[in-house]
Amino acid sequence: MPKAKVLIICGSDSDIEVMKEAEGVLRKLGAECVMTISSAHRSPGRTMKLVGAAESDGFEVVIAGAGFAAHLAGVAAAHTSLPVLGVPLDSSPMKGLDSLLSTVQMPGGVPVGTLGIGKSGAKNAGYLAARILAIKHPEIRAKVKEHIRQMAEEVESKAKSLKPSKG
Amino acid sequence: MPKAKVLIICGSDSDIEVMKEAEGVLRKLGAECVMTISSAHRSPGRTMKLVGAAESDGFEVVIAGAGFAAHLAGVAAAHTSLPVLGVPLDSSPMKGLDSLLSTVQMPGGVPVGTLGIGKSGAKNAGYLAARILAIKHPEIRAKVKEHIRQMAEEVESKAKSLKPSKG
Amino acid sequence: MPKAKVLIICGSDSDIEVMKEAEGVLRKLGAECVMTISSAHRSPGRTMKLVGAAESDGFEVVIAGAGFAAHLAGVAAAHTSLPVLGVPLDSSPMKGLDSLLSTVQMPGGVPVGTLGIGKSGAKNAGYLAARILAIKHPEIRAKVKEHIRQMAEEVESKAKSLKPSKG
Amino acid sequence: MPKAKVLIICGSDSDIEVMKEAEGVLRKLGAECVMTISSAHRSPGRTMKLVGAAESDGFEVVIAGAGFAAHLAGVAAAHTSLPVLGVPLDSSPMKGLDSLLSTVQMPGGVPVGTLGIGKSGAKNAGYLAARILAIKHPEIRAKVKEHIRQMAEEVESKAKSLKPSKG
Amino acid sequence: MPKAKVLIICGSDSDIEVMKEAEGVLRKLGAECVMTISSAHRSPGRTMKLVGAAESDGFEVVIAGAGFAAHLAGVAAAHTSLPVLGVPLDSSPMKGLDSLLSTVQMPGGVPVGTLGIGKSGAKNAGYLAARILAIKHPEIRAKVKEHIRQMAEEVESKAKSLKPSKG
Amino acid sequence: MPKAKVLIICGSDSDIEVMKEAEGVLRKLGAECVMTISSAHRSPGRTMKLVGAAESDGFEVVIAGAGFAAHLAGVAAAHTSLPVLGVPLDSSPMKGLDSLLSTVQMPGGVPVGTLGIGKSGAKNAGYLAARILAIKHPEIRAKVKEHIRQMAEEVESKAKSLKPSKG
Amino acid sequence: MPKAKVLIICGSDSDIEVMKEAEGVLRKLGAECVMTISSAHRSPGRTMKLVGAAESDGFEVVIAGAGFAAHLAGVAAAHTSLPVLGVPLDSSPMKGLDSLLSTVQMPGGVPVGTLGIGKSGAKNAGYLAARILAIKHPEIRAKVKEHIRQMAEEVESKAKSLKPSKG
Amino acid sequence: MPKAKVLIICGSDSDIEVMKEAEGVLRKLGAECVMTISSAHRSPGRTMKLVGAAESDGFEVVIAGAGFAAHLAGVAAAHTSLPVLGVPLDSSPMKGLDSLLSTVQMPGGVPVGTLGIGKSGAKNAGYLAARILAIKHPEIRAKVKEHIRQMAEEVESKAKSLKPSKG
Repeated sequence: MPKAKVLIICGSDSDIEVMKEAEGVLRKLGAECVMTISSAHRSPGRTMKLVGAAESDGFEVVIAGAGFAAHLAGVAAAHTSLPVLGVPLDSSPMKGLDSLLSTVQMPGGVPVGTLGIGKSGAKNAGYLAARILAIKHPEIRAKVKEHIRQMAEEVESKAKSLKPSKG
Repeated sequence: MPKAKVLIICGSDSDIEVMKEAEGVLRKLGAECVMTISSAHRSPGRTMKLVGAAESDGFEVVIAGAGFAAHLAGVAAAHTSLPVLGVPLDSSPMKGLDSLLSTVQMPGGVPVGTLGIGKSGAKNAGYLAARILAIKHPEIRAKVKEHIRQMAEEVESKAKSLKPSKG
Repeated sequence: MPKAKVLIICGSDSDIEVMKEAEGVLRKLGAECVMTISSAHRSPGRTMKLVGAAESDGFEVVIAGAGFAAHLAGVAAAHTSLPVLGVPLDSSPMKGLDSLLSTVQMPGGVPVGTLGIGKSGAKNAGYLAARILAIKHPEIRAKVKEHIRQMAEEVESKAKSLKPSKG
Repeated sequence: MPKAKVLIICGSDSDIEVMKEAEGVLRKLGAECVMTISSAHRSPGRTMKLVGAAESDGFEVVIAGAGFAAHLAGVAAAHTSLPVLGVPLDSSPMKGLDSLLSTVQMPGGVPVGTLGIGKSGAKNAGYLAARILAIKHPEIRAKVKEHIRQMAEEVESKAKSLKPSKG
Repeated sequence: MPKAKVLIICGSDSDIEVMKEAEGVLRKLGAECVMTISSAHRSPGRTMKLVGAAESDGFEVVIAGAGFAAHLAGVAAAHTSLPVLGVPLDSSPMKGLDSLLSTVQMPGGVPVGTLGIGKSGAKNAGYLAARILAIKHPEIRAKVKEHIRQMAEEVESKAKSLKPSKG
Repeated sequence: MPKAKVLIICGSDSDIEVMKEAEGVLRKLGAECVMTISSAHRSPGRTMKLVGAAESDGFEVVIAGAGFAAHLAGVAAAHTSLPVLGVPLDSSPMKGLDSLLSTVQMPGGVPVGTLGIGKSGAKNAGYLAARILAIKHPEIRAKVKEHIRQMAEEVESKAKSLKPSKG
Repeated sequence: MPKAKVLIICGSDSDIEVMKEAEGVLRKLGAECVMTISSAHRSPGRTMKLVGAAESDGFEVVIAGAGFAAHLAGVAAAHTSLPVLGVPLDSSPMKGLDSLLSTVQMPGGVPVGTLGIGKSGAKNAGYLAARILAIKHPEIRAKVKEHIRQMAEEVESKAKSLKPSKG
Repeated sequence: MPKAKVLIICGSDSDIEVMKEAEGVLRKLGAECVMTISSAHRSPGRTMKLVGAAESDGFEVVIAGAGFAAHLAGVAAAHTSLPVLGVPLDSSPMKGLDSLLSTVQMPGGVPVGTLGIGKSGAKNAGYLAARILAIKHPEIRAKVKEHIRQMAEEVESKAKSLKPSKG
């Protein structure tokens, strides 16, 4: 079976830094990913071509991160039948409320699976993409489960190192 | 000179009722207009074709009305060099805050002239389109000025009929 | 290959009516689904058992719909490695802003793919689940594509029936 | 009678700094407290065990502080019959609106007594816990009353030192 | 030991209907309660007298429900050392956002344990008051635990009656 | 001394119903008032003339009630040195948040004393105008004090009629 | 006639810096003012005494500035028949939305004339108090008018110094 | 034909920096523009004169940028029949939500084409003004189209320089 592959699109080059969180997570969990830049508004043709070809290019999930009136994930969902995940970024003075509502409030029929605003959202886009890929790629399922186990362990160990704080 | 012509696009058939306000205003002020339905998400191809051909079809302004994560005006602005006006509609449980932010918070370079939420916004899209057309069509300028004069007169006459309310 | 199967959990019996939208979409697109009730707060034990067993029970996606401080999807994501989709419902006086933020703003590591508030969100949870299942079940991919095609067609035919409205 | 004892749970180690305000207040007012870390999402098992054992471990009040979609207090309230107080933290780009609504908008039957966002909220969680403990521990009642008296006195003395400002 | 007793204050007579939810819960769980009307603004003297005497009148918890700029709970907390719970009501056009922020955002030193907006919040004020009383009154602890058990059971039975909905 | 006189301006005839609350209060407290209609936007000339002449016409306070982007009070404050009170009305889909912010967030130098949204705000504009007039008209002071006394009394009597509700 | 006198109350010593804007404006316009600290919650007795005596102490207007759940202005309005102006401060993580709603959304009968959030609001509280005092103190009216004239002049002169910017 | 000319009004000198974005865009696209300062509230006379003469002074579009309760664009729209574009600035503690709603929520009949908050909005006011002028000035149409082409190209080239990031 070919390797699990995710397409990550950043709406602008200033979004790359944050969206690298998604990329990092996916690589850690064993998925391949391609990260690129394309704007729903400034390069609509490129966006359509990228997204329209995503399935035949072997991608199984699309992640789109954008700020302001963030249409990127919605536009992506309109041009592919792959699952599209949207990460609203807090680049405008509205601190991400604008991009959250622009991403999540999609009309019925064209779904975007929306994650939280900014860095944690980007990270979670990676984790959700991995959970999605895992329904077909068992080796990713194993890594997701291992990550879930590790998170719990980390909390335990942090709590332990706090012990002297008991009063 | 050919008649001033405006393209009005409704994101869904349930938006027609409200967007007719724009159409009514434009006809009253002497502009021709074509109203149609096309969704940024459910019929992206149709939207691009409509908007992409708007200039060569003789339209001078595009008005787009949509609810929820309202991408229609933004998508239109990405596919034409005509001025695009956006009307955020209050069809979702968020009462139009979602569509307002999705319409107005466009990233730099791809402008949407946004009007208020719902019915008054639709009406004002008509009035703003007329003011825009008026920079080229002097007969519309005259009608816009007449409308401005009438609004003031109407307030005066309503105030007069209130007179007995002096205490 | 066994049939694609989705678990739909409603936070309360008053959420069933809305969440049936997700169920209807999934059946139409050829997925099997089980809809049940369990609250993150009032029946935490039941919720954990349901979600904890979801993978071994053959489910591939979990959808959770809840209102108020909607923790159901987040709690589900904490107890399974399956992809979890959350639908914020507008049952409180805050009209869904509370449930949207409670569902979407998950901390890094435990992702919830969040859909829009209320009915359209429920519908889209169905459509997103189908797109996810489609990466493994090609017969669902075909139906998702057919649905995308139908939506565009429907818009065209509605636009046609509007034609006399040209002025 | 055993000493009054409060369990303080921080959703993440980055929340400890702020939650120490609660601990400081409680120690000052004569209550014992144990502060630890546990996440509703990353270590759900640990959270349940901690909270589930709180009563038998001799705790009389539970305080939970968390940011983002803050489910910690709600999850705690679902696993104990002790009074649970929630402190929404402003660690996400939404500045605490997300954690406030996620903490306070609990559905009927599973109550969380919610304090304000951030530092003042953490402090007040300590003061409210003390007032609660005071219904059983009269020595704490005395200290709460003394604190109330001191606050008023402090305002008076600050106002006095301002006197020259009369114009 | 004297019976557990709670003072419920409604900011206006139009708030009584909703605040009866708190009263009903407390009676069901074996606490006595007195419900009355007093406004922080329209009858400040009465409010201070009521609250100031609450402890010596044998009350152990005070619940205050109010709408608009809801100062009632905060004013109560300033005049007693008893734990004060606040219920923000959605009686203004702002749907309770105003009363929520006015109740919960108390400055450090004067805590109000805030419940959700409206009916569920009123209900939860009753449940939280009961959990507080339970640290001194073991018979109420038993009833709180029984209620927690019943809630879970109710969900199970509702889920069972839904069974035929499996598709 | 001439009678205390207040000018009440409604931004539109649909605002009259609500603004009559201000008029009723002022008449009850012994002030004369003239209520009229004038829009900041639709009849800017009329508004300036009305407000500009208000002082010489013997008015001592101006009240302005408007909805949507409510500029009326701000515009009034720019054309008179009299105190201007603003009532934000909830006539748009934003339920008055738009008119509240448009009225209250005046830049430094041009003050508007803003009351609450809608009916209670209109009532309070009357009460605040009366308190302002009272610094010059002692007979109004007496009536304001009497009203304050009556409000407290009313609460007491409503509370009494509730007595049997003690449980 | 005695000099016009305004009482300015700051809810906390950290509010003094901002509230000095009001004091500065009032002194510039010829009114006397006393600035002091008193909290609605931490020193309720002092607040009541201060406000209750304000009229007999010769004050004609009360200004109250507070942050968080800002009850100070509302509590002041409940204890005097003088006009009370409220300045919501942005000291909490909610950036003043909490204090704005807590100050402006007063229930009918107890009015607070609310100014904008923070520094401009404090300045405007001074200007509005001056306009109020001016209805009785003609020398202040003259200074208010002079200030209005100066503001316009300042804008003109700033615009002039910008001239070279014409392109 | 005379050159295309735009009037840019800043509500205060502190808004100039941001509004220069509009000026820069317009010059780049071949339009002449005059930038000046005038406040709707502090210099209402100047604002009316400027705007009232705009048409006869040869301007074809008016752009107004203001913060706080931003009335400038609305007031401009009331005094001219030219198209008026409004840029809400984020100069107050509310981060531009106040100026956005004050600018966009205009009542029916007096339209303001509103752009996004702050810098991107100012830039887009320039781009929208250019699109409007282009309906009469074909040389501007050409430059707008060229800019649209360049934006797409820039995205492509940024994406290319990212290539090594493929994993």
